[in-house]
Amino acid sequence: MKLASLKSGRDGKLVVVSKDVTRYSPADHIAPTMQYALDNWAQVAPQLEALYRDVEHQTVPCERFHEHDAASPLPRAYQWADGSAYINHVELVRQARNATVPESFYHDPLMYQGGSDGFLAPRDPIPLKDTAWGCDMEGEIAVVVDDVPMGVSAEDAADHIKLIMLVNDVSLRGLIPGELAKGFGFFQSKPASAFSPVAVTPDELGDAWKNSVIDLPLLVDYNGAPFGRANAAQEATFNLAQLVAHAAKTRNLCAGSIIGSGTVSNKGADGGPGTPVSEGGAGYSCIAEIRMIETIRDGEASTRFMAPGDTVAIEMRDADGHSIFGKIEQEVISA
Amino acid sequence: MKLASLKSGRDGKLVVVSKDVTRYSPADHIAPTMQYALDNWAQVAPQLEALYRDVEHQTVPCERFHEHDAASPLPRAYQWADGSAYINHVELVRQARNATVPESFYHDPLMYQGGSDGFLAPRDPIPLKDTAWGCDMEGEIAVVVDDVPMGVSAEDAADHIKLIMLVNDVSLRGLIPGELAKGFGFFQSKPASAFSPVAVTPDELGDAWKNSVIDLPLLVDYNGAPFGRANAAQEATFNLAQLVAHAAKTRNLCAGSIIGSGTVSNKGADGGPGTPVSEGGAGYSCIAEIRMIETIRDGEASTRFMAPGDTVAIEMRDADGHSIFGKIEQEVISA
Repeated sequence: MKLASLKSGRDGKLVVVSKDVTRYSPADHIAPTMQYALDNWAQVAPQLEALYRDVEHQTVPCERFHEHDAASPLPRAYQWADGSAYINHVELVRQARNATVPESFYHDPLMYQGGSDGFLAPRDPIPLKDTAWGCDMEGEIAVVVDDVPMGVSAEDAADHIKLIMLVNDVSLRGLIPGELAKGFGFFQSKPASAFSPVAVTPDELGDAWKNSVIDLPLLVDYNGAPFGRANAAQEATFNLAQLVAHAAKTRNLCAGSIIGSGTVSNKGADGGPGTPVSEGGAGYSCIAEIRMIETIRDGEASTRFMAPGDTVAIEMRDADGHSIFGKIEQEVISA
Repeated sequence: MKLASLKSGRDGKLVVVSKDVTRYSPADHIAPTMQYALDNWAQVAPQLEALYRDVEHQTVPCERFHEHDAASPLPRAYQWADGSAYINHVELVRQARNATVPESFYHDPLMYQGGSDGFLAPRDPIPLKDTAWGCDMEGEIAVVVDDVPMGVSAEDAADHIKLIMLVNDVSLRGLIPGELAKGFGFFQSKPASAFSPVAVTPDELGDAWKNSVIDLPLLVDYNGAPFGRANAAQEATFNLAQLVAHAAKTRNLCAGSIIGSGTVSNKGADGGPGTPVSEGGAGYSCIAEIRMIETIRDGEASTRFMAPGDTVAIEMRDADGHSIFGKIEQEVISA
């Protein structure tokens, strides 16, 4: 099924959305908010599934679903933890500064604790105070879990994945080196992120949901032109169940915790750095990546980071070309 | 006023607690949960204050307040961000490994994003899977804010501090070096923390709340003996309003966000490392600190980290010796 939160108060109003993402039926008589649904998933999910069938069969009244009326599926969450499943991205970062990737990165995932107290809506602008902060998008996959016990295995973690979304993990690249040098990880360099208008259950992905990754390209457009077409199953060093298990090693995860994949990133056809979409490559899911490739190739980066007026769109389409999650579409504005 | 959340469901049941922390009156007719109260603070706080006056004047029926029935005031929160106000602690860490403290640390606070999806209750045991993980307590002060706008000044941030608590920021020291080496900050090394049974408004601290710090000693007992008596105003390089402003530099903070002080730490009377309480010093608010002092003095640490059966208690008393926040009291158990 497909679920969304219409903008309403702090936590939105839960609705069930049709498979083609054009119609919705209110679900607040079953669960007022997405968090409530996740808190009571075993009881609530069957009722939401029944409503979804009615929406699909058009046996309940529906209204037009406007993606710009949607908040992030969880407008705020109790946890947002973002991994780095696509080590290719990390390899490029390191290669650009002549460093090697520690061997441990291939079996021990990178993960940071992100801010989750307020997410941008999928069509909200990205407020930016200072272009020197180096605003970047990061196109990623994210999953939402129910209650996960401490020490869960990756195998068992897969069953705790209840919903899947896309995310634009907004990053302020100019603030990252200083923060990482301090040793405590990202904080100011990770402002509010935005998630796709719709969250879907894994069965909605059909055969494309394989081994807890999505075998489909992530469509990232920048200023209206194709920028990234990286396949989210390819070169995924870790799958999302492994990232959930990593997050739960020393503590329980509360229902509604969101775990991210990190920037989706593919190697080039020759195993080297990827090439732009305009040259037939899979392109990039963030600007930093093309800048690293420019640095490796030319000695310096030429593509600048985002400034007011720049737009990013992130979407994923099924084999028939239909949007699965709706579209994240954001413009950077001066804050 | 003083507020607490009695254990009930995922988010507790809000109660108003008497100044002497012995009686309570239910407040769920005003606000069902602490988060609800913070989400609607301007409307709700006057009603809670009125109930608090009634509790103090014994004009409403009250029940006995048992601290072991209390959850953390926010049993789960949308944000927990922990600073390092007491640079003395950082200086000792660095001194123990012959490194210097970067000059920037004195004007740009260290802060990490902590997990907030589930806190231990103040009398809950600390589950530990492996003593090699190096379980440690960290006695700290934490504040809860209402909605804070991005870019707030430290002066304005002070007015957003609505509640104050104590916290035991549980740390797994054995996992920290590996995580920090990866560069993304703490994750597995920071399991669930516990907050004091009671959260209080700043006015409850009277003259002890000065310039957004508390001018009182934090009482940390370890296995029943005094371990730390560090004054929380002394050697505070940053106050809590400055830490709130740091957290809000690039994003809004949602009502109910918790910002922590980092481990409270005082220098010795001679300006050097502090001495144990048993030797007349202010002692330590975490085990790591005494281990650093042992390392500096003896070349190696002799005090071991916590193991199942070890207990920690954290409390603060007013000038008359009365407990302000109730007591955090936890035993480490095998998970």
